[in-house]
Amino acid sequence: MTVISIPADSLFGVDNLPYGVFSTADAGPRVGVRVGDSVVDLAKALGDDTFAQPTLNAFMAQGRDRWVEVRAQITALVAGEIADDAVFAVDDVTMHLPIAVADYVDFYASENHATNLGRLFRPDSAALMPNWKHLPVGYHGRSSTVVVSGTDIVRPCGQRKAPADAAPSFGPSIRLDIEAEMGFIVGVGSPMGSSITPDQFAEHCFGAVILNDWSARDIQAWEYVPLGPNLGKSFATSISAWVVPLLALEAARIDTPVQDPTPLPYLQGDEKWGLDIDLEVEWNGDVVSRPPYAQMYWSPAQMLAHTTVNGAAASTGDLFGSGTISGPDKAQRGAFIELTWGGAEPVEVAGEQRTFIQDGDEISISATAPGADGGRIGFGEVRARILPATGDAR
Amino acid sequence: MTVISIPADSLFGVDNLPYGVFSTADAGPRVGVRVGDSVVDLAKALGDDTFAQPTLNAFMAQGRDRWVEVRAQITALVAGEIADDAVFAVDDVTMHLPIAVADYVDFYASENHATNLGRLFRPDSAALMPNWKHLPVGYHGRSSTVVVSGTDIVRPCGQRKAPADAAPSFGPSIRLDIEAEMGFIVGVGSPMGSSITPDQFAEHCFGAVILNDWSARDIQAWEYVPLGPNLGKSFATSISAWVVPLLALEAARIDTPVQDPTPLPYLQGDEKWGLDIDLEVEWNGDVVSRPPYAQMYWSPAQMLAHTTVNGAAASTGDLFGSGTISGPDKAQRGAFIELTWGGAEPVEVAGEQRTFIQDGDEISISATAPGADGGRIGFGEVRARILPATGDAR
Repeated sequence: MTVISIPADSLFGVDNLPYGVFSTADAGPRVGVRVGDSVVDLAKALGDDTFAQPTLNAFMAQGRDRWVEVRAQITALVAGEIADDAVFAVDDVTMHLPIAVADYVDFYASENHATNLGRLFRPDSAALMPNWKHLPVGYHGRSSTVVVSGTDIVRPCGQRKAPADAAPSFGPSIRLDIEAEMGFIVGVGSPMGSSITPDQFAEHCFGAVILNDWSARDIQAWEYVPLGPNLGKSFATSISAWVVPLLALEAARIDTPVQDPTPLPYLQGDEKWGLDIDLEVEWNGDVVSRPPYAQMYWSPAQMLAHTTVNGAAASTGDLFGSGTISGPDKAQRGAFIELTWGGAEPVEVAGEQRTFIQDGDEISISATAPGADGGRIGFGEVRARILPATGDAR
Repeated sequence: MTVISIPADSLFGVDNLPYGVFSTADAGPRVGVRVGDSVVDLAKALGDDTFAQPTLNAFMAQGRDRWVEVRAQITALVAGEIADDAVFAVDDVTMHLPIAVADYVDFYASENHATNLGRLFRPDSAALMPNWKHLPVGYHGRSSTVVVSGTDIVRPCGQRKAPADAAPSFGPSIRLDIEAEMGFIVGVGSPMGSSITPDQFAEHCFGAVILNDWSARDIQAWEYVPLGPNLGKSFATSISAWVVPLLALEAARIDTPVQDPTPLPYLQGDEKWGLDIDLEVEWNGDVVSRPPYAQMYWSPAQMLAHTTVNGAAASTGDLFGSGTISGPDKAQRGAFIELTWGGAEPVEVAGEQRTFIQDGDEISISATAPGADGGRIGFGEVRARILPATGDAR
């Protein structure tokens, strides 16, 4: 039997207990929980086949009472001894995409980001569109290209036309960028014809991950009118491997910034669902930005309420991204297009002047939040290396 | 044993053989093929468990050689006698959504439609955006709200703001509309990092359906800048129950209209994938429009090539819509917002003057194409009734 020892400064104490899907040399993907630097095989440790599956979906679909119950079981479990064959060192396991993604929606909920992007993409218009403070603007993305942290990202090819070009051309994106976001995962859906109110958020949302919404700005800028981003985003979206349960985020809950004008009643609630999460963006090992989730204008509860208010179904495994997280300061901007102001103001990365992502670059976004008793909990990281484009020149 | 008799004027002769998923009083959803006014239970008739499933996905994933082989098997089968318990009258079965929808993308491939919508949504700008003739513009939609013909559609509620309104309001959509489209279904996907050329279309696309992209124009007009349609579309998309195999559309293949400027090489191919399909839109039993698919600017082969050219994965069950089909004549417009010019020019429907859809209305879109030997084949129909909004007033 094993007693798990949790380092004093661990971001994965018993106030966190994030879920993931892992495999080992001798057994395929199944659900585990992270405790300190260990991963506990839940099917083995709890004797419950719900966890002997390659995604969290079956467990997520069981609902909040069950999420509370299992969290209590795990808390009791890690306070005692666990069978040796149910415990692995986190460095000895391979992590997999933790969920089967149903619908994926990406929002645009940071006022600073929306303002910056508006200035960069539409210099002759008002930075913020008239609808922005009335509803959480979002669009559907490609579910099949959501990948787990650690997956290499191949530079996409596509069609682009800079304003000075006479005609569009095809080739590898030359303005490849990140968007540092948080992602939220629906555990319990809602049928077509119904909707989820902001105060019902905790009954439906299972947990949160870090999300990197890779963006090819040259492709996006040319394609996005009038129906929104498509190829500039659809090649890949990365999420962190550990899903932090909403139940672990109680100490992180705060008010959103003041929403003025007051949103319509369907976007109002009594529960606080602003979240005090601090992100950190590393580019080739240098921290280049510290985006503050606390300043996001729209809460994830408002995003889910908006998504379903027209009667659209929500499903177990739905994923929605917050949109790029940018604070008011330059060093808080969550996309390189903002950080370098469209490439005009390079930043120093490991001794070099950089604007957009080069082949071989490695990007890692990490996040932490307040935990119990004044400590902190971690979301781990979403990390990827950029590989050269493989498409032919066409 | 039964010999299936096919009426002489049937749109479901042996040159069609569309697949669907049906259930009967005594057995749940499984795959069938339509022949005349009969449905043949393929698991029973062919003794193949691939068809004893509630979606076509497993069969579609087997690839084109297998699609050809099964089509030949069915052709031989219906020429002879079939076991009585494998044949049902089409009126005695219930049809279900034929596929498990993976990613859903909707295009915008009719020049007449894009021009009309541009004039209506952006009267002060050029009707066609600068990118429109260079790439098939499209966006991702909501997979979980794709429903089969016959499913009632509940009028969506949402946020909208007419230009003259001081502030947005919430309530049932008052500009509920259709979009008459064709939908294309991916049978064999492509992994992340690869792409599908236009000339590889027939290896990947399994077949086609009629698609109604329900659209709440008031919600859409307020929300769609800058990231595209979301709630104005995500409440429901209807498809016809019978998937016409691409193999049945050989006689329908034509050139697209001349594409000027010449598209970039990745959108070029030697194969013709324009399709000579005639649609008909019925509103409460009156034919109000006859959209001609033959005039669509971009072919479905170009749409799939564009979708994957950035390395985005394609999956079995991916569905993509053509976008509204509108011809140059008023009586060929595939959306009511065009047909009534934003509601300014009502049309007569069953003796009443109408603009947008009213509660209780029934909309049916049917389609036919050239078949073998100068005959025609049918896609059946996509039909739905509109129910009143159920959301509270909030």
